[in-house]
Amino acid sequence: MNKRLVKPSILPGFMELTPADQILFNKMMDTIRKNYEKFGFLPIDTPVIEKSEVLLAKGGGETEKQVYRFKKGNTDMSLRFDLTVPLARYVSQYYSQLEFPFRRYHIGKVYRGERSQRGRFREFYQCDIDIVGNEKLSIINDAEIPSLIYSTFKELGFDDFTIYLNNRKILTGYLEFLNLEDSAPILRTIDKLEKIGPEGVEEELMKLGLEKETIDKINSFIRIEGSNDEIIQQLKDLDVDNELFNTGIEELATVIKYIGLFGVPKKNYKISLSIVRGLDYYTGTVYETFLDDYPSLGSVCSGGRYDDLATYYTKQKLPGVGMSIGLTRLFYQLREANIIKADESSLTTVLIIPMDGFEEKAVEIANRLRAEDIYTQIYLETGKIKKKFGYADKLNIPYVIVIGEDEVKNDQYTLRNMKTGEQRSLAVEELIKCLK
Amino acid sequence: MNKRLVKPSILPGFMELTPADQILFNKMMDTIRKNYEKFGFLPIDTPVIEKSEVLLAKGGGETEKQVYRFKKGNTDMSLRFDLTVPLARYVSQYYSQLEFPFRRYHIGKVYRGERSQRGRFREFYQCDIDIVGNEKLSIINDAEIPSLIYSTFKELGFDDFTIYLNNRKILTGYLEFLNLEDSAPILRTIDKLEKIGPEGVEEELMKLGLEKETIDKINSFIRIEGSNDEIIQQLKDLDVDNELFNTGIEELATVIKYIGLFGVPKKNYKISLSIVRGLDYYTGTVYETFLDDYPSLGSVCSGGRYDDLATYYTKQKLPGVGMSIGLTRLFYQLREANIIKADESSLTTVLIIPMDGFEEKAVEIANRLRAEDIYTQIYLETGKIKKKFGYADKLNIPYVIVIGEDEVKNDQYTLRNMKTGEQRSLAVEELIKCLK
Repeated sequence: MNKRLVKPSILPGFMELTPADQILFNKMMDTIRKNYEKFGFLPIDTPVIEKSEVLLAKGGGETEKQVYRFKKGNTDMSLRFDLTVPLARYVSQYYSQLEFPFRRYHIGKVYRGERSQRGRFREFYQCDIDIVGNEKLSIINDAEIPSLIYSTFKELGFDDFTIYLNNRKILTGYLEFLNLEDSAPILRTIDKLEKIGPEGVEEELMKLGLEKETIDKINSFIRIEGSNDEIIQQLKDLDVDNELFNTGIEELATVIKYIGLFGVPKKNYKISLSIVRGLDYYTGTVYETFLDDYPSLGSVCSGGRYDDLATYYTKQKLPGVGMSIGLTRLFYQLREANIIKADESSLTTVLIIPMDGFEEKAVEIANRLRAEDIYTQIYLETGKIKKKFGYADKLNIPYVIVIGEDEVKNDQYTLRNMKTGEQRSLAVEELIKCLK
Repeated sequence: MNKRLVKPSILPGFMELTPADQILFNKMMDTIRKNYEKFGFLPIDTPVIEKSEVLLAKGGGETEKQVYRFKKGNTDMSLRFDLTVPLARYVSQYYSQLEFPFRRYHIGKVYRGERSQRGRFREFYQCDIDIVGNEKLSIINDAEIPSLIYSTFKELGFDDFTIYLNNRKILTGYLEFLNLEDSAPILRTIDKLEKIGPEGVEEELMKLGLEKETIDKINSFIRIEGSNDEIIQQLKDLDVDNELFNTGIEELATVIKYIGLFGVPKKNYKISLSIVRGLDYYTGTVYETFLDDYPSLGSVCSGGRYDDLATYYTKQKLPGVGMSIGLTRLFYQLREANIIKADESSLTTVLIIPMDGFEEKAVEIANRLRAEDIYTQIYLETGKIKKKFGYADKLNIPYVIVIGEDEVKNDQYTLRNMKTGEQRSLAVEELIKCLK
């Protein structure tokens, strides 16, 4: 062959897995999907490519710089950078065909041309749920989201995680009460608390022109501690004369009460007044979720309540509440921290190994097993038996059936447990019973 | 609100579904995936964006014009236009980490900027399987693929479909025997038989410079009819002195024999000597699958054997066999032809409807049902009971539980079958039993 070979490689910042890791990844995705469906969320799937005019209707900000935007012919198009903008567009576009509250889940890839760095991806899966109301939406929905987060992470195999909650109305109202009308930059600063520490927050607030006394008040406010009930009581005791503040407390108290009714154990949810979320569009309840033993992973699932989903596309007022799991990043981090391992991942239950020349019997038995929904592969290549066993071993296939002259003569087949090495001689009916 | 609204819309040539249709679509995709896994195929997932240099290594042809290709910074990148090129790249890149035969499935979106027309999509799902050998691959694999096609379409709800098979060696060998060395353009012409009819084929072959007598020979050759065994016998009887031709017959006979052993009913597979597939890279067995009652849908599942998968990336010889289902197009066609309908599609089993004020009990019962894996939604908004029932009705949710004062007092809840209208009063334990 004389032609020049191209080096097979992918772009930096894209995750690609070996099949064993992919099986693990898919299992996590299936678990998430199953929980979303169990709570009555409907699937949608939107195009990865959309009109730039639509996708970037909001415009500005860091996000727009990261967008993959290009022209084909005269059409200006972009790859979606999240699943929220497509949801807003979808709900506006099909408004008359949807039933409200509209509960949708969406699991799909999104694209951001971020600067390449370890653990950050340019293509990643988001797993989103949102409940969108028409004009109004009960506050109880804000409590159902954490109960779904709990159900999902529990089934993903975690016990020790905490859903931190807050309500943005409380802090915004408190800032109003302190006569700080432009709350957005202050909230964004407080959102950095985990990253830059209390001193960093203090410094940045000073740069925003806040007085020392005010900063101290904010600092001690966001550090109010105690049980959920105690925090709510302390907030009430502040006796702040601000409507937004008091509405926030009332909402938070209701959400806390209902999270309990939804059966989430006390240890798995907690009010934290410093949780504010960076995004401007949240207006009420906000969530972040941390794995207790791995706080350095950051929030693995975040979300919140917003007043109006689709202001760029429709005059309908569409309040909602939702959350998102960034699965690609989560998977990467769990694997890096050795919390999940692909060592034993296999979808296939059994590999049938015929001795050379006994392929027909192997096919016949595979038919029987597959008819019983037993995930079965046949090793169809000729070669040494040792190599065939090695194949099962490397693919982590837990069982092997060997078929040779004796087996066919006696109509009894050797079933080997690849983990224990145990072998038994069984008729086909018994094989099926064992493998089911 | 004074700001200008952007009209919510998507680009032409992209499919987007209502949730009810999406549920149907996902069910089809799940069925396909389940069958792929049952036969021992491993999942992979590759980036949608790849380096243009890698993705377009082959270059030229219609495909390249259709590719979404763009630059971000200095990087020249493209969206994948099929799943075969990414497979070739993947196998070459991870060669030393994979076990051969490497059986992979890949379900994902691909992109082609085709001219927009009804039923053609610029973004569509392909569902591919391939078995890739290292240096060699048993011919029995060529028979396992049709048995998987059979299993999949059967579970998708079809009975009357036919997998048409051929082996390109036979026709290529026959053309060699007729002293026609440049077989590729002739095969591409014969591939158009369905589209342009026998006269069209004849005309094009004349344009290629073939003599009338030769064309007649080809014409009667590709029309050889009969049972599978009869066709093979007739081919043998031609007594063609060409090695390729005879190897092809031998392979085809083996494949036909093994398809039977794999349990595919006789009515579902058939040799057709006019099936050649347009793509150059097939070198042996080729498949196309037609729904017997809807031939106008064209082939719904095609594939075949190739000698070497990854000539552009590696010197390793990687023969393989595979097939692909174009799910987006298939779904669109089935829906257009009214073969599938979304009327009754729901993932949710039951909607709990509390009378205003009885939300707490609704939450409590939802917990119980979800703990038993019953897919449950609670209607949490206040409003008239009729509206709440209408919601269940429009979402095709089959059962409703009503909770009001009497129900809570007696600890007995009304379960309504939304299809029959039948209502029963039941304790929670009985509700669970009924809904499971």
